[in-house]
Amino acid sequence: MNRFLDLDDLSDSALDAVLARARRLEHSPVTDDLRGRTVGLLFLNPSVRTLASMQAGVTQLGGQTFVVHSGAGSWKLETRDGVVMDGEAAEHVREAIPVLAQYCDLLAVRCFAEGRDLATDLSDRLIATMADLCPKPFVSLESSLAHPCQALGDYKTLDDLDIPRRGGRFVLSWAWHPKALAFAVPASTLAMAARRGMEVTVLRPDGFDLPDPVMARARATAARSGGSITVTSDRRVAMEGAHVLYAKSWAAPGHYGRPQDEASLRAPLKGMWCVDEPWFASARPDARFMHCLPVRRNVKVTDAVLDGPRSVVVRQAGNRLHAQKALLVQMLGREVVR
Amino acid sequence: MNRFLDLDDLSDSALDAVLARARRLEHSPVTDDLRGRTVGLLFLNPSVRTLASMQAGVTQLGGQTFVVHSGAGSWKLETRDGVVMDGEAAEHVREAIPVLAQYCDLLAVRCFAEGRDLATDLSDRLIATMADLCPKPFVSLESSLAHPCQALGDYKTLDDLDIPRRGGRFVLSWAWHPKALAFAVPASTLAMAARRGMEVTVLRPDGFDLPDPVMARARATAARSGGSITVTSDRRVAMEGAHVLYAKSWAAPGHYGRPQDEASLRAPLKGMWCVDEPWFASARPDARFMHCLPVRRNVKVTDAVLDGPRSVVVRQAGNRLHAQKALLVQMLGREVVR
Amino acid sequence: MNRFLDLDDLSDSALDAVLARARRLEHSPVTDDLRGRTVGLLFLNPSVRTLASMQAGVTQLGGQTFVVHSGAGSWKLETRDGVVMDGEAAEHVREAIPVLAQYCDLLAVRCFAEGRDLATDLSDRLIATMADLCPKPFVSLESSLAHPCQALGDYKTLDDLDIPRRGGRFVLSWAWHPKALAFAVPASTLAMAARRGMEVTVLRPDGFDLPDPVMARARATAARSGGSITVTSDRRVAMEGAHVLYAKSWAAPGHYGRPQDEASLRAPLKGMWCVDEPWFASARPDARFMHCLPVRRNVKVTDAVLDGPRSVVVRQAGNRLHAQKALLVQMLGREVVR
Repeated sequence: MNRFLDLDDLSDSALDAVLARARRLEHSPVTDDLRGRTVGLLFLNPSVRTLASMQAGVTQLGGQTFVVHSGAGSWKLETRDGVVMDGEAAEHVREAIPVLAQYCDLLAVRCFAEGRDLATDLSDRLIATMADLCPKPFVSLESSLAHPCQALGDYKTLDDLDIPRRGGRFVLSWAWHPKALAFAVPASTLAMAARRGMEVTVLRPDGFDLPDPVMARARATAARSGGSITVTSDRRVAMEGAHVLYAKSWAAPGHYGRPQDEASLRAPLKGMWCVDEPWFASARPDARFMHCLPVRRNVKVTDAVLDGPRSVVVRQAGNRLHAQKALLVQMLGREVVR
Repeated sequence: MNRFLDLDDLSDSALDAVLARARRLEHSPVTDDLRGRTVGLLFLNPSVRTLASMQAGVTQLGGQTFVVHSGAGSWKLETRDGVVMDGEAAEHVREAIPVLAQYCDLLAVRCFAEGRDLATDLSDRLIATMADLCPKPFVSLESSLAHPCQALGDYKTLDDLDIPRRGGRFVLSWAWHPKALAFAVPASTLAMAARRGMEVTVLRPDGFDLPDPVMARARATAARSGGSITVTSDRRVAMEGAHVLYAKSWAAPGHYGRPQDEASLRAPLKGMWCVDEPWFASARPDARFMHCLPVRRNVKVTDAVLDGPRSVVVRQAGNRLHAQKALLVQMLGREVVR
Repeated sequence: MNRFLDLDDLSDSALDAVLARARRLEHSPVTDDLRGRTVGLLFLNPSVRTLASMQAGVTQLGGQTFVVHSGAGSWKLETRDGVVMDGEAAEHVREAIPVLAQYCDLLAVRCFAEGRDLATDLSDRLIATMADLCPKPFVSLESSLAHPCQALGDYKTLDDLDIPRRGGRFVLSWAWHPKALAFAVPASTLAMAARRGMEVTVLRPDGFDLPDPVMARARATAARSGGSITVTSDRRVAMEGAHVLYAKSWAAPGHYGRPQDEASLRAPLKGMWCVDEPWFASARPDARFMHCLPVRRNVKVTDAVLDGPRSVVVRQAGNRLHAQKALLVQMLGREVVR
């Protein structure tokens, strides 16, 4: 495997090997697996966890990183093909990616959805183009339609908590947010839970269905793994016997790229879609609350839930470190599991 | 000691040990005391010296760092409790601190005063809250009311220059600056000089007394150490026989958080409170000029003083490196002095 | 050599040694030549290649870096002497440079031309002042009038491609750009090709001659090396038998610092001075296209040329890494060639 753009770039055996290594690295974090290796980190968008965990993880493995933030102390990067670059961007990814690849053994890039055109963002073509431009191993640190390092860490978190793969009940719930956010995390979360073989319910208000290709792919994955995908707007039904509530906000596909048109749909949901303790009334008593972070407190979820015993959001973020380190060893280390 | 929020978090014996180690590290800067260790650096405000000296220092000790600047290539962080996060900040320190702590062996954070409410900023509660949220050793890189790494480095600088502890005459002088600045550096400087047992004089114009709690604490420290604290607006009296003039600007407590109200008090002082060579007329001939940097030339102090033989501001900054390295070894190394 | 502000700071023998080491490092990139060494990187302007290649290069040599971006997460730096600092800049390079120098074994600084006054920018005094302020080895990462690391890498690229030194035909062509850019890259490129002994032609529209001192210096260099310098606005003549077309945009010296006055001169050149395949009609069939990057696609050069076989811009950027590493070993390593 020389690119990791999606959790499905890992075969089942490779995924098992990465998760097993992540558990070992959690207990013995310092190794020399990446001695003499350089990992380049290119961010076209903001980052806290990914930035810090990648820097820490690589150096704990004996390697080194460099960091370039597009537009913050560096040139703004153009991503569109064939464009006449007479605007703000001074450099094109067609140069930047192969150039930076020369300075490292693996290049990892964050490039969010543009949020203008649904078909473009669903194609997730930009990150694939950048991977194609990169002659070295390439890792997505979140693209238009996938956040595979998050999915990998979340998979480990579910394992750590002994949430069953087959038969585990996983609720992915829309939550209110002031902005129309991208599909990367919900799409990767949905696919991850489906691949785990879980009984997945998407809980969302009317108008906020995930896009058809996202749902179709998750259903196909569930069919292979023995899991299932259900959609509802009924919170009590969704949460019945749930092991996990995973909250995330996303845009209404029918108004994609036109947030002002979506506002009338979104505004009345404020407060009603802020996760609170009563949401868990019909869930298992030990049901967990998950979120990828960052999270807006008392907007998407209350202080009571985040600060209470259900919340595993900090543990999820911790598993980003362990999972990414295992992934990097899988991609750059001597013994590679295929 | 698992947190360093103030110089007084070091006992007398620990302070002696840190200063002794700092002297050794000044002469032998490269060690492997922090081999395999990761230090996380989180900046909610700008930094030059602290950023560079922490990065350099940790790696010279064989360890590694990661850097997160809140709001510059990362999410803006919310610090207030219980707030509905529907504004600019996308992440709360209640998540960010424990998350980042998982990626490192020690977390160091800069978080300046808000400059709105005097009682809030004097409570210095935010940095303490962040330390409480951090399960790992925690270092303040300047908070609302303290800049302990600066105080530690300055203590060493005074030692290096053979400025007497008992009997040394230390003048902390207000200086003009276009903005109403925080109390962190003057409060830490005053407490440091008092702890050293020095005869400390605060020289300031009317209306610019340091806040009562800052003065009360310094007086209590001086009482224990055998030093003294005096306040005056008479420059000649203050500088009589002085070993050191330490310049810093700060806000007028009576107008805190209302800079436009303070302007009429501040404006007429411009030029009169810019340190210049004549200030030293009644001082010892070899009296030194100190400042924590950054400093606005010809606003707070003239080129003549800064470029002349009295100025030790560059040496002060150099001691930041040595002192912080010694502190980190004290907090993370195998042999710890209590 | 304790400062590298210009390619000519390397004697012929030192240049040969650096180029030879660069070739060795290209094939064996990981060494411990800089073990225990810290390289400080200070950017007063944006960077991608320089930032990434310096970070990667130092760590591949076993050393460590720290990075400070003036004004992005740090204080904005003042560079003018004698100024009353009551504006935006909070710190002066007179403090910043010696302070940062204490934290490292070598300080490397980027500081572009101000673009206001031609004589000031042609004096290139600021970078020299900063080098004078720095008691440690000092490297320019691009100044007002020189980009010596780029010239060093480009020298190696020409060698790699077997472009003849004596007799090689090198065309430095002006290209259209929306802004009036600095002379650093064209001046360093011209001097580099002249030093290589090449037959150099400057191709530029009327009004866009390079400044006299830049041309005079290049002519003197060519006289010593056996090369030549010609100037023309006739593309076909310039490109006759050319081995290399190196494109770059620069300001019209006659309107320097007044971009609005220059606009009437610049505007009609748009499109006509965007390098395209027909430019190469009279060149050697295997003529190469070079550019220092970043480059605005379809503004300065077409997609066809950049994506075609002539373009060696990515290789040029790769040689930045190898050349800079060799330079750092030359300046900091144990065996130094003079």
